[in-house]
Amino acid sequence: MAQPATPVSPPLKDELDIVIPTIRNLDFLEMWRPFFQPYHLIIVQDGDPTKTIRVPDGFDYELYNRNDVNRILGPKASCISFKDSACRCFGFLVSKKKYIFTIDDDCFDPSGKEINALAQHIHNLLKPSTPLFFNTLYDPFREGADFVRGYPFSFREGVPTAISHGLWLNIPDYDAPTQLVKPLERNTRYVDAVMTIPKGTLFPMCGMNLGFNRELIGPAMYFGLMGDGQPIGRYDDMWAGWCAKVICDHLNLGVKTGLPYIWHSKASNPFVNLKKEYKGIYWQEDIIPFFQSVVLSKECTTVQKCYIELSKMVKEKLGPVDPYFQKLGDAMVTWIEAWEELNPSPQAAAAAEPSGVKKNEPSPKPK
Amino acid sequence: MAQPATPVSPPLKDELDIVIPTIRNLDFLEMWRPFFQPYHLIIVQDGDPTKTIRVPDGFDYELYNRNDVNRILGPKASCISFKDSACRCFGFLVSKKKYIFTIDDDCFDPSGKEINALAQHIHNLLKPSTPLFFNTLYDPFREGADFVRGYPFSFREGVPTAISHGLWLNIPDYDAPTQLVKPLERNTRYVDAVMTIPKGTLFPMCGMNLGFNRELIGPAMYFGLMGDGQPIGRYDDMWAGWCAKVICDHLNLGVKTGLPYIWHSKASNPFVNLKKEYKGIYWQEDIIPFFQSVVLSKECTTVQKCYIELSKMVKEKLGPVDPYFQKLGDAMVTWIEAWEELNPSPQAAAAAEPSGVKKNEPSPKPK
Repeated sequence: MAQPATPVSPPLKDELDIVIPTIRNLDFLEMWRPFFQPYHLIIVQDGDPTKTIRVPDGFDYELYNRNDVNRILGPKASCISFKDSACRCFGFLVSKKKYIFTIDDDCFDPSGKEINALAQHIHNLLKPSTPLFFNTLYDPFREGADFVRGYPFSFREGVPTAISHGLWLNIPDYDAPTQLVKPLERNTRYVDAVMTIPKGTLFPMCGMNLGFNRELIGPAMYFGLMGDGQPIGRYDDMWAGWCAKVICDHLNLGVKTGLPYIWHSKASNPFVNLKKEYKGIYWQEDIIPFFQSVVLSKECTTVQKCYIELSKMVKEKLGPVDPYFQKLGDAMVTWIEAWEELNPSPQAAAAAEPSGVKKNEPSPKPK
Repeated sequence: MAQPATPVSPPLKDELDIVIPTIRNLDFLEMWRPFFQPYHLIIVQDGDPTKTIRVPDGFDYELYNRNDVNRILGPKASCISFKDSACRCFGFLVSKKKYIFTIDDDCFDPSGKEINALAQHIHNLLKPSTPLFFNTLYDPFREGADFVRGYPFSFREGVPTAISHGLWLNIPDYDAPTQLVKPLERNTRYVDAVMTIPKGTLFPMCGMNLGFNRELIGPAMYFGLMGDGQPIGRYDDMWAGWCAKVICDHLNLGVKTGLPYIWHSKASNPFVNLKKEYKGIYWQEDIIPFFQSVVLSKECTTVQKCYIELSKMVKEKLGPVDPYFQKLGDAMVTWIEAWEELNPSPQAAAAAEPSGVKKNEPSPKPK
């Protein structure tokens, strides 16, 4: 599956949305046209809503700017970050599909390799994960690989995969201090592997090239309060990753990392990044031990219930670190309320709605 | 470090022994001559001690057969397996070096790649491990890589590396059922990565291509009771791996897996393997939950103390599964007694021995 052939009919064509946060014209889509054109795009316009974002012809998309976010969510719009790519999670909220692929607008197909990143994410998401025991030959469900000697047979069925975390060639996803220290470092190593991140282990989830099963883990994919009016930035995807990982571990869901790679073209400004990150860098020294110690109660049987319980723990345990975490804990609750409003359970929807009328359906700008 | 250049002076030349268990002439050493010749070899002859094992000229080695094992260990020789490659751990016991590399006699340099497997193991062992948090760009200490954004700074120092687990191209290390089901499967995927196995995660440690720091973890590298007179085989390295991993986790030591690859040339007979493995395959369903639940007490401050405590738990928790585990628990204690006899602590040695006389020094066959 390193270079999956383009299938005759694109896999999951009607079950997957591609979510892109952007502040610029989406010319980068030309690079992905053969792979993305069959899919529906949800574009979340970051920053000034009066600016017009140009999307290349032939793509099927809906576009939301800040005015749309405010109109659709009303007072709950406060949980969606402004002037920060964390706004991408609004796209997760309004999607009606089972799967999401999200990618940054400065990412390309790895030069000269013609790799269909999306097909690899779909492959990762459709095959089980193996978080309970490490397989030394990596993904046992990949062609030419299997479970090695000594792998317990009762663990080989695996668990459903919730998240597929892809990587980046060229500009690596480094923090500001590392960017400053190693301005010329480029990632040139193509590691031909996909693996499950073991249960109980946290990882730094990057939102640049990410697939997930929205039905399994969507409500945990909240990118927090970042950017305009907030004390930190660049921890949006990290926050989502830590929350999602402890919930996946609790609900027995899998998280994979590795292939596919995308080509990350632009290094962001390390000085600007340092300003955004510096509080996160020291808060993190409390955040990580917190997440490493999280134990969710057995009453938490859905992602929503897990997330609400986690929001309480955040306020209680991280609130003393900084008042920001009180605000973040509240925003986590608002996010779940917004999720449930826009994604009512089938039973709740049937009870609440007159037949034939869809309430709370967002009305995006017509393309 | 995928293809480390041969250094001018071989690294750790006087601090590393290569341990090879064998039943045949060691012609395979010709394939490794440029890399292994500077090092001292400890050859453990498996099976019939009257057979002469031929070693190619120019190698510096000591060779032990069963008679030597019995002579050196006396009644404690009962803990060393006979007619099974598990006997390799006798080589770990009699070594006086800080590092061990052990390799099977049917493993070659990966065809056409001229990879110095040993140099890669040494590199892995000399650089820290990062078991507390997953780094998505793999080994952060490798050239061209680093810790990614979101990796907590206080974890970046890492922990000392105790074990470097290498992999195999060509014949994969499959159990008998998988061998039977996939007789033609070959591992052709070269994954250019080294990674730390996270704390709290067990893995299937294969003894075919393995390096370790004997000072840090040696006493846990006991390969158990296998082969002649025992109810199972082919779980020797697995047993050592599970014991060593829980002890590394307790003592804050690291375990790496990935590079280097060796070329594994011979598939063993799956029918013979099934006979050796079948009890292990179902016992394992109790063994793994046991190891996953092991919590060593804070009094266990050395590998020896950890191992003795673990032996008691094995007898108590696994004894009910089969009387074999009572015997194995006893053998674990015998192994530690033998280790302490042959490897007295500097203080104990100074107190017990008249100056200038080395007690318990094994006298191997002169080469």
